Amino acid sequence: MARYSIGLDFGTESVRAVVVDITDGTIAGQAIIAYEHGVIDQALPGLSGAKLPSHYALQDPLDWLNGAADACRAAISASRVSPDDVVGIGVDFTSCTMLPALADGTPLCLLAPHRSKPQAWPKLWKHHGAKLEADLINHVARERREPWLARYGGTISLEWFFPKVLETLNHAPEIYQAAQVWIEAGDWFVWQMTSGPFPRCRPEELVRSTCQAGYKAMWNRQAGYPSREFFAAVHPGFADVVGERMPGRLMAPGQRAGVLTEEAAKLLGLRALIPVSAAIIDAHAGVPGSGVADASTMVLVLGTSACHMINATVERLVPGIAGVVEDGILPGFFGYETGQISVGDAFAWVARTVALSHAELNQRAAQLPPGSGGVMALDWLNGCRTPLMDAGLSGAFVGITLATQPEQLYRAMLEATALGMRWIVDTLIEAGVSVERFVAGGGLPGKSPLLMQIYADVLNAEIRLAASEQSVALGAAILGCIAAGEAATGFRSIVEAIGAMARVREDLIYRPSGAARARYAELYGLYRELAADGGGTVAAVMRRLREAAR
Amino acid sequence: MARYSIGLDFGTESVRAVVVDITDGTIAGQAIIAYEHGVIDQALPGLSGAKLPSHYALQDPLDWLNGAADACRAAISASRVSPDDVVGIGVDFTSCTMLPALADGTPLCLLAPHRSKPQAWPKLWKHHGAKLEADLINHVARERREPWLARYGGTISLEWFFPKVLETLNHAPEIYQAAQVWIEAGDWFVWQMTSGPFPRCRPEELVRSTCQAGYKAMWNRQAGYPSREFFAAVHPGFADVVGERMPGRLMAPGQRAGVLTEEAAKLLGLRALIPVSAAIIDAHAGVPGSGVADASTMVLVLGTSACHMINATVERLVPGIAGVVEDGILPGFFGYETGQISVGDAFAWVARTVALSHAELNQRAAQLPPGSGGVMALDWLNGCRTPLMDAGLSGAFVGITLATQPEQLYRAMLEATALGMRWIVDTLIEAGVSVERFVAGGGLPGKSPLLMQIYADVLNAEIRLAASEQSVALGAAILGCIAAGEAATGFRSIVEAIGAMARVREDLIYRPSGAARARYAELYGLYRELAADGGGTVAAVMRRLREAAR
Repeated sequence: MARYSIGLDFGTESVRAVVVDITDGTIAGQAIIAYEHGVIDQALPGLSGAKLPSHYALQDPLDWLNGAADACRAAISASRVSPDDVVGIGVDFTSCTMLPALADGTPLCLLAPHRSKPQAWPKLWKHHGAKLEADLINHVARERREPWLARYGGTISLEWFFPKVLETLNHAPEIYQAAQVWIEAGDWFVWQMTSGPFPRCRPEELVRSTCQAGYKAMWNRQAGYPSREFFAAVHPGFADVVGERMPGRLMAPGQRAGVLTEEAAKLLGLRALIPVSAAIIDAHAGVPGSGVADASTMVLVLGTSACHMINATVERLVPGIAGVVEDGILPGFFGYETGQISVGDAFAWVARTVALSHAELNQRAAQLPPGSGGVMALDWLNGCRTPLMDAGLSGAFVGITLATQPEQLYRAMLEATALGMRWIVDTLIEAGVSVERFVAGGGLPGKSPLLMQIYADVLNAEIRLAASEQSVALGAAILGCIAAGEAATGFRSIVEAIGAMARVREDLIYRPSGAARARYAELYGLYRELAADGGGTVAAVMRRLREAAR
Repeated sequence: MARYSIGLDFGTESVRAVVVDITDGTIAGQAIIAYEHGVIDQALPGLSGAKLPSHYALQDPLDWLNGAADACRAAISASRVSPDDVVGIGVDFTSCTMLPALADGTPLCLLAPHRSKPQAWPKLWKHHGAKLEADLINHVARERREPWLARYGGTISLEWFFPKVLETLNHAPEIYQAAQVWIEAGDWFVWQMTSGPFPRCRPEELVRSTCQAGYKAMWNRQAGYPSREFFAAVHPGFADVVGERMPGRLMAPGQRAGVLTEEAAKLLGLRALIPVSAAIIDAHAGVPGSGVADASTMVLVLGTSACHMINATVERLVPGIAGVVEDGILPGFFGYETGQISVGDAFAWVARTVALSHAELNQRAAQLPPGSGGVMALDWLNGCRTPLMDAGLSGAFVGITLATQPEQLYRAMLEATALGMRWIVDTLIEAGVSVERFVAGGGLPGKSPLLMQIYADVLNAEIRLAASEQSVALGAAILGCIAAGEAATGFRSIVEAIGAMARVREDLIYRPSGAARARYAELYGLYRELAADGGGTVAAVMRRLREAAR
């Protein structure tokens, strides 16, 4: 009997469902459904039509349920797989996307008294309304020398969980009070599947992912969340947030959060009682989805931005990383997340600015020597995530002459992201985290062989590619398969499941070339000098330019 | 009786002749003739066709004579002025454009034994073959603490006179030996007019301009040229260069070098015995041509590059300036020359790179606030002349975000040249040179009112414009008029002649606006910090990038 696992991959604009053969990871069918309301950043849907401040990015929770239902049914239909043969479901979700709900799972934004209030709606990961709140939380944490701060490289982001909750407490205290459950969207969706859907959910059946909690809500397996005293020091009304408003047990991705309820099964067009894995952040699902089950292999998810993840057997506090979380990516490992904010976005900026296509620029840039004929870029067009964690930085070019061609700017930007990536790797290694192998996934590697060759040369290491074009959704399906357990799948371990269902390509490996490698070693020194660890002249000027431009 | 003066303006690609009414400076007729061989930078003309090394830029001396003859005849014809009414001739020329000749004025490159040797040909100002020679001359001058070095801001350029001569001594000693006269092209042309043409010239009738000698050959009214000992220390064979190979008397522009010979008069289509002024460097002719006859008024000649000149009653040694020369621009003043290498060239680079027209970019950039929305540029796309005197620097942009538009890059580059200009003004003022008024000329002011407004705001001063579009050629004509003397012209002084023949526009004055002025004061601080007086991180990285790219 063939057996299948379903991966539900919730992105920013749409949800994708894949139906995966657990014997070899083949995608038997898939479908993608755009959210009806997409990203809500201008005005609230419905009668109120309330205008939104800039930097707001909200979503409609019904879009997630309806989108998942349509995508799952369409994927099953396309696959011609019998719903009876589905053994598990995994869920990945953008993060930190979060919402306030009642104890029965009902999102506050669906209730008449709150529907016209932006703070009642789910906040999407890229909602940037909580800048002051993030500043305050960082400030208080530093003042109190909170030990958890070091696990996040010394700074937490305005995109994370508690700044977004505090924003609601500051701007709409009545919403904060009405929220019996503050929850990540991925966890909320799993709760709907295994306990609901609302209003039938029960708080005692709520499972939170160690991944989302660890990377976005400062949770730690040993220490738990930050203390009540800490939250009280931030704001007296905030003291109860964890104790009173965040029910739930914590489980690692791949652990079984529960099984599909009758009502949820009807929604998805599946049978009841199928095991559902605890959720995972979308990028992080790319690790198992790239066939990586071990420590010391870094997974690069390269798209408009980049997320670099690696598992290790040790916990090290590394300045500037997004976070280190036990069981954060796979059970049994310390998962490290690092990132670069502008990668594909930065290349697109160059292409748009010089009015040439990526294809044309790639072709011309490939003719240039390493070093782009003397032009160097800094890739911080939307700030620097790892290792500087500084949103006030910006992009730069130096070395421009009257003879500089557009493709030199383009190649310099490709090289800048690679040099920035090497800085991240060095930062991890210097802190004692082993980094030995690289697997690249996401949309960029297939589009730019030149980019991959530059990464291999700059990192002085082979770059392998995830075999699946849907490594994130495949990763979710693998976690669903793991949650189903050995009796249902035959896999005795996570390593075995990942080994069977995902892999890297063997037909295409980018290897460092001697001459380029040596040249990039020099250029890396210059890049670091220019970046000056964020404390130098260039960074100081950048910060003041951005302040002044506001 | 109407009286006219002729200005002959020798540029890089062509020579212009203007016939000017001395009563009010009206241009009665003009003509421009392109040099037959233009800039010789690929191969020598004629049978040899010898290929040239890169960085070579030569010219054919017959192009100057033939071009001047054609231009002068055509201008007279267009003006309908009788040759009998021409009272004087002035000559401006690119510099340091120079050549080796025999004592009878014959250029060595016209002689069969030397014709196939590049070192025998006139070297154009932008010939860059003498880098090692300039380095050596600077090194020896510093070692010996030569007092003249400080008058050139501490560094002499590979484009100047003695590096070019030494290049010939190093590469073709037989040419050096054969050269009885090493001479600036402007002086050579005046010699042809007043003593020749060759082979009839006589060394005792040779007049050299204090302008060219002062700015390009380290000559000084008190100290003369560098000493025989200095030249011997540079190279034993170089000891005789001034004593044996540079005959001639020195005269300031506006002084009478001689009168037109019969043969020269036939060539130009004029009558013999017309007074001819000592030559002047082309940009410097823009000072009288802009109506500036006083101290403390800076004349900005803005084209592909920029030359900023000012007269003063005091001699100050200013770090980084191109030079201070007594009688260098007008008799009776110390003339200061400063410059920016890439101005119009840098704007053209941006326009070409973003594939938009200057008109479109100017229109969009004019809508932006001061500061270009957070983008700042360094305008050193071909190195920095004043005040850093460093060819190893390059252009840069910082402050780029994903939202940065092409017009922000363009405006940032306009602003960078203005901020760099303010740095030059501050450098002069700090050294004790008074700078009180600004007059802009050259091709750019008419093309970009936005640029002029930015200069007014950044300098916090009114910018006036030269009334004549041909301020350089007009300046040459004014000098010809001065050389003619009071009896022929009625002008009792240089001030009177300049006042009658040239002026600034009264209908268009750019005035600083309050808000922009304050904003630019802040930005200037940031620009200086980024430039870090050439010693900071950015400059260090730039230098190494350019070295590595070679």
